[in-house]
Amino acid sequence: MHPALRNLKVILVGTRYGGNVGSACRAMANCGLAELRLVAPSPDLTWAFAEQMAVHATDILESRKTFGTLAEAVADCAAVVGTSRRGGLYRQHSSEAREAVPGLLETASKAPVALVFGREDKGLLNEELLLCTHIVRIPAAPAYPSFNLAQSVVLLCHEFYRATLGDRPLPSPEEEVSPPASSKMRQTMLAHWREMLLATGFTDEPRADHMMEGFGRIFARGAKTEADMRILMGLARQSRWAAEGKRSGGPS
Amino acid sequence: MHPALRNLKVILVGTRYGGNVGSACRAMANCGLAELRLVAPSPDLTWAFAEQMAVHATDILESRKTFGTLAEAVADCAAVVGTSRRGGLYRQHSSEAREAVPGLLETASKAPVALVFGREDKGLLNEELLLCTHIVRIPAAPAYPSFNLAQSVVLLCHEFYRATLGDRPLPSPEEEVSPPASSKMRQTMLAHWREMLLATGFTDEPRADHMMEGFGRIFARGAKTEADMRILMGLARQSRWAAEGKRSGGPS
Repeated sequence: MHPALRNLKVILVGTRYGGNVGSACRAMANCGLAELRLVAPSPDLTWAFAEQMAVHATDILESRKTFGTLAEAVADCAAVVGTSRRGGLYRQHSSEAREAVPGLLETASKAPVALVFGREDKGLLNEELLLCTHIVRIPAAPAYPSFNLAQSVVLLCHEFYRATLGDRPLPSPEEEVSPPASSKMRQTMLAHWREMLLATGFTDEPRADHMMEGFGRIFARGAKTEADMRILMGLARQSRWAAEGKRSGGPS
Repeated sequence: MHPALRNLKVILVGTRYGGNVGSACRAMANCGLAELRLVAPSPDLTWAFAEQMAVHATDILESRKTFGTLAEAVADCAAVVGTSRRGGLYRQHSSEAREAVPGLLETASKAPVALVFGREDKGLLNEELLLCTHIVRIPAAPAYPSFNLAQSVVLLCHEFYRATLGDRPLPSPEEEVSPPASSKMRQTMLAHWREMLLATGFTDEPRADHMMEGFGRIFARGAKTEADMRILMGLARQSRWAAEGKRSGGPS
């Protein structure tokens, strides 16, 4: 886990619904964050819902810290990142979350950084926005640009988590046990297929090369490894043998 | 709004909690998606919670389509994208969501694409994963890697929305004339292949499913269009006919 993630503090201001607090805890745990701070949560907030939605992240919920004002909650933070859809005054130092994250992660490698989320109905107040050193926006469809609170939390936390992984593409095809096939092995496989297409009567000699272009295209995109070549080659041999009347003991 | 977003279909399989369905609707609207499909939702699902969490996205909730099986729900889709944390067999063609999105968006500019999310408790079944042409993973902290269902939906949908804003030009239209093949056409093609593998003696009944996973993997990566399906299907029919001794006038 990247150590800077531990310096990211999620701060929920005036939250009303327990489910949002619990979902935020789970999202934080999913993304490697650990510290939740609440500012003046609503007295109507149902803690049982919070616990239910936190699932395996109840440790974050239980170790939360509660403050009376945002100023107190962010007192130890070197950067205070507000989330807001509003432009206006604050557009001057607002940026898109994905663009802002690398710089903020660098700050968080040295000092606490606050990620501040406002009320479900009216977001952050002007006086709260003035405490922010950064305003980040999460782009959304113009027809319905307002994310649910817990959804905003997961989207922003995940941008941070994702950034700690860096640009290296995650291993996927490379994980395969079979090494990439050589061009020679591919040509051998394709030659077996050509023979098989003729033996089964799928095509005839004048049209065989044209037909092989179709299979070559498919296999160039889909068949990559030695294991892929072996399965395709095996089938071609078997089909040819079957088409030729299973004359000998087995496919050559 | 990028027109490809309208071709992305969110498919929730066996969902149990109404709140997750509603939150998924809101996340979809936030990200410019419009069509929700449910596969065998739990009879215990509370629709009032779904409506409450959808907030201003109740139109998506109300116009949902419901299916008995995932195969039916994805029949018209050219790509079927499963979300799974599981590796194993499918690791071979799984990739990280952010890496997979540009290619999938290109497919969605021409044909429907299914984004499939499994059950809250046990995700997608093996038979459902076998319908998927792509498996995407959303990276998460190893200590708690399991996102809430609605959180997974917003993270994946937002990757698509964000990609439509692009800092790069969208990929140029594919040169191929043939449209992307539907899932139904792909399943039909694979069924022909299974028959052919048995008829040619390439495999036997106990091992046929395992063998088909190998071909399924290759074709998921390589065979994309209707023309691809036709050539593969044609070969399977012909080879089977040839292996069965060319009894009748031609392959069925």
